[in-house]
Amino acid sequence: MADLFKRSLEMHYDVGGKISVENRIPLTTSDHLALAYSPGVAQPCLEIYKDPSKVYDLTIKRNTVAIFSDGSSVLGLGNIGAKASIPVMEGKAMLFKRFAGINAFPICVETQDTEEIINIVRNIAPVFGGINLEDISSPRCFEIEERLQDIGIPVFHDDQHGTAIVVLAALINFCKLTNRKMEDLKLVINGAGAAGITIAKYLTKKDPNTPNQRLVKDIIVTDTKGILQADRADLNAVKIKLLEHTNKEKISGDLFKAMHNADVFIGVSRANLLTADDIRNMAKDPLILALANPTPEIMPEEAYKGGALVVGTGRSDLPNQVNNVLAFPGIFLGALQGRAKQITLAMKFAAAEAIASCVTDIRPDQIIPHALDESVAIKVAEAVKKLC
Amino acid sequence: MADLFKRSLEMHYDVGGKISVENRIPLTTSDHLALAYSPGVAQPCLEIYKDPSKVYDLTIKRNTVAIFSDGSSVLGLGNIGAKASIPVMEGKAMLFKRFAGINAFPICVETQDTEEIINIVRNIAPVFGGINLEDISSPRCFEIEERLQDIGIPVFHDDQHGTAIVVLAALINFCKLTNRKMEDLKLVINGAGAAGITIAKYLTKKDPNTPNQRLVKDIIVTDTKGILQADRADLNAVKIKLLEHTNKEKISGDLFKAMHNADVFIGVSRANLLTADDIRNMAKDPLILALANPTPEIMPEEAYKGGALVVGTGRSDLPNQVNNVLAFPGIFLGALQGRAKQITLAMKFAAAEAIASCVTDIRPDQIIPHALDESVAIKVAEAVKKLC
Repeated sequence: MADLFKRSLEMHYDVGGKISVENRIPLTTSDHLALAYSPGVAQPCLEIYKDPSKVYDLTIKRNTVAIFSDGSSVLGLGNIGAKASIPVMEGKAMLFKRFAGINAFPICVETQDTEEIINIVRNIAPVFGGINLEDISSPRCFEIEERLQDIGIPVFHDDQHGTAIVVLAALINFCKLTNRKMEDLKLVINGAGAAGITIAKYLTKKDPNTPNQRLVKDIIVTDTKGILQADRADLNAVKIKLLEHTNKEKISGDLFKAMHNADVFIGVSRANLLTADDIRNMAKDPLILALANPTPEIMPEEAYKGGALVVGTGRSDLPNQVNNVLAFPGIFLGALQGRAKQITLAMKFAAAEAIASCVTDIRPDQIIPHALDESVAIKVAEAVKKLC
Repeated sequence: MADLFKRSLEMHYDVGGKISVENRIPLTTSDHLALAYSPGVAQPCLEIYKDPSKVYDLTIKRNTVAIFSDGSSVLGLGNIGAKASIPVMEGKAMLFKRFAGINAFPICVETQDTEEIINIVRNIAPVFGGINLEDISSPRCFEIEERLQDIGIPVFHDDQHGTAIVVLAALINFCKLTNRKMEDLKLVINGAGAAGITIAKYLTKKDPNTPNQRLVKDIIVTDTKGILQADRADLNAVKIKLLEHTNKEKISGDLFKAMHNADVFIGVSRANLLTADDIRNMAKDPLILALANPTPEIMPEEAYKGGALVVGTGRSDLPNQVNNVLAFPGIFLGALQGRAKQITLAMKFAAAEAIASCVTDIRPDQIIPHALDESVAIKVAEAVKKLC
């Protein structure tokens, strides 16, 4: 890892900015200037002024996304601020281009005030066909995303949904592999940040507008203090709301108690949390998604020792990588192509099904497509576009 | 013109967005992903967190500018709003790339509220090495630009300064051509918007921090109601302030009165305002810069009939085009290379001198370099960088 960090730093010094803005048409003659800029450009301007929907036909809006962050929760680094978050946002922009051909541009803001952030996103929307919120800390991220759903373009917080969608795809294929039904799974989510809470919401809170939703009856969420349950005085509003649909038997206690007889462990928390004994405490042939990065909650080898049937991590050097690059490029591509105003829960479930369907030969070491599989974004985009 | 408008519209429908965001390094292997994104990217993030100045070495900030508009005063089209302004801002981005190799990205905001705009620009600054304010209406543009001078990166309202700097270059070469001194010119500026007011400010208000400033003693500014003077009840604060340094003889009356015996007419107002007789009313061998676009205040042929020695317009199909593309690409390039925090008046005068110096063979039909002359931005950048 030290070598990778060193090489990454060198590469960043070397390239000095991983993306660039380029011209798509030549600008060599006076005629080019007159067509692309003054005075000819007045005509497309007037066309949009008369019919604002033409902005999709005549500008970059049709294929452009903002990667918007306040730098409050960057990778595993925490609140490092706007400037220090830029290398991540540039990398994210690269992924948008690479896997979906989408123009993505980083917008990293100084403020971490919810109202100011909402106001800025609303105001910068005209140029963009979608907003990818990124690395905004929980629980602010939930309110910010929710209150921006009416701005006329999709606003999608990838830390919530990207991971949740790929986890969902993994669950779908794990059920196929083991002939289990989603609804019958007993599932433990460790980590009640953006990703953990969103996975729980998807799978427990019935949404009448999502006919393709898959629900799981028995989900327990835990955080650093143990199982989320109503007697705890330290829960924020988002965690309290989650109790309406999770932990139905009102169990209290620690993670170990929650995991007893569970079929699935989803870790979105921190390194080296579990041992093989903790896996033995689960139901037979469980699924372990240990997604803490770069060091998982348990290493696959150790999990297999405890009897895990399938193990996935967030790491590219191990099988079954839960990488949200499998979700967001295709989701935005489909939403842009369909000119969606929102990315609905139905689209998110459709995306998960599409990702799952890309694995034709489901095996314990292959329930999730490879992060570099270029066919995934295309299939996801098709599925999302159908629902626009 | 009808044909040009038609072709421009077709071209915009055809291309659907004139710029794109591209990756500067490959992203084909897992190693590429690990270097450019997670987990390797954590290292450059931490480097910037420790030393924020490293953001210039490790991200696009070093060579990236925002083209920021609220769409309140777009070309000759007026207040057409953010969406309809995007084709102009994309065109502007193309010019930045073409002439200075700078990445420029359009930020078009819904709000036209001064306080909100100031707040948004401050907040989005981290990613950008400079902010080019564009097509923001007067007099709001003055306050917005002024109050953003402390944000640590250059904020430059091109409608004020771009035209003013090229006009200054034209004046410099007109003086060389006719062996006159700048300070002795009698100058009339018709139009008291962003450009007109800025030209007057540059040439009349002594700035102790600008040793290379050139002052003109006798300047009269006129607007649609006639000569700006203290008795008028309809002047806004910006116009009133201008009276401290212009119209020293407190003349009142119409444009015709102002132009009597003037050496220079600078029109930044509207089409077909003057006749040959109006030029005859001026001093001998005057300079006429008739910059209304696309139709000038007076066509060159008519101005020559009235005795004009030199005529410049805003049009690319006529000699002596005053095109701000001669100024802003080089100014931002120099400022970015020098990591300037502001673009000072001294830099603006240096830019004007550099533009003027690009014309080696000064003739009445050649006092300004051609808009497509690639050497101009390089010379301007050198001059600006020296002052950083």
